[in-house]
Amino acid sequence: MTDDQRKNGYGMIREQTIEKYCGDLYSRLPAPGGGGAAAVAGALAACLGGMVENFTLGKKKYAEYEEETVKALAETARIRDSFLRLADRDEEVFLPLSKAYGLPHETEEEQAEKDRIMEACLKDACEVPLEIMRELLALSECLSAMIGKTNRMVLSDIGVALALAHGAMESAALNVRINTRSMKDAEAATERNEECERLLSEEAKIYGTFFPEVREALK
Amino acid sequence: MTDDQRKNGYGMIREQTIEKYCGDLYSRLPAPGGGGAAAVAGALAACLGGMVENFTLGKKKYAEYEEETVKALAETARIRDSFLRLADRDEEVFLPLSKAYGLPHETEEEQAEKDRIMEACLKDACEVPLEIMRELLALSECLSAMIGKTNRMVLSDIGVALALAHGAMESAALNVRINTRSMKDAEAATERNEECERLLSEEAKIYGTFFPEVREALK
Repeated sequence: MTDDQRKNGYGMIREQTIEKYCGDLYSRLPAPGGGGAAAVAGALAACLGGMVENFTLGKKKYAEYEEETVKALAETARIRDSFLRLADRDEEVFLPLSKAYGLPHETEEEQAEKDRIMEACLKDACEVPLEIMRELLALSECLSAMIGKTNRMVLSDIGVALALAHGAMESAALNVRINTRSMKDAEAATERNEECERLLSEEAKIYGTFFPEVREALK
Repeated sequence: MTDDQRKNGYGMIREQTIEKYCGDLYSRLPAPGGGGAAAVAGALAACLGGMVENFTLGKKKYAEYEEETVKALAETARIRDSFLRLADRDEEVFLPLSKAYGLPHETEEEQAEKDRIMEACLKDACEVPLEIMRELLALSECLSAMIGKTNRMVLSDIGVALALAHGAMESAALNVRINTRSMKDAEAATERNEECERLLSEEAKIYGTFFPEVREALK
């Protein structure tokens, strides 16, 4: 976040009230947008994973999993913080991109300069949702490993976390695609699209296996 | 929110910073939990719908849809506010339920009194995620109607909103089930489960039709 952006009302998302964040999202401000909202939804999912472990830690029944419980508590906290940083980062990389769209392109030189700047901005703007997707996959792996080793009273919260992470995954993938489709460097675009598809498919396997398991266990 | 709950650190969710809400969600506090997180995710989705309309209002290209644009702006704002209230309400109804679990049940009278209180609390606790699901269905209908009638620059945000709403829908449904499964009044439980399944299936039809349409349009 640059001083200029702070002056224009942008700030660290974690410091904003939910009302302010929602109001900015609803408004005509260039940011936040769908990429940031996906990161915030991911943070909610990570917190629910941590909550499940907090309600498990110290319970005799799950004592044999204590080491895993402690590790998962640290991992969900790490991922939550990562998502909140990525929500900020999404705004940081979007603002130069939205400016670049408006650059003059009447002469050949102007067009070439606009293309060069756009391409660099698109690559930055792509990296954020890709990183969100990597963290969502890590979170889904962590959540699915909790099933059967955590307090059954909060089993539904693992399900909620898996479902919110899945929605965030599909969301972040759209944000990768809207940037790769405008890239001129076809190789760079393909590489990113392939990683995007791989992450989507790995997480979909986890969600497709474990969400129904949670749902059935709660019937 | 009662004064007692406020004294214990609960307050309106909209007034909390994202960091505080995430911290409380992660922690061992009895609330917030998965039901509230689903409502907050729904609020993010509603805000994105409003954002899409804010970036459409006043554009010549979409002038013929102005009336719909204005209506959708009001509807997404209404749904956003409803979700934020429902996130508060989820905490309000959960706290008496979590207390009721701990009531004495050694004598027959105590057991009968505990059953009576539990049943009332379960019905209240069920109504909140059901209302979240009703609002999510209304939101999905509103979002899907925006496609083709709104600024194409923010088409991906309709997709993100649909995906986050879908994740919230699956989440809220788990929260209906964890309450109906403990109800003694089988008729009341069945009625609520049936509404839950109907809402799930109506929203799934919208998501299954329109999310792939958005994704394909962005390829």
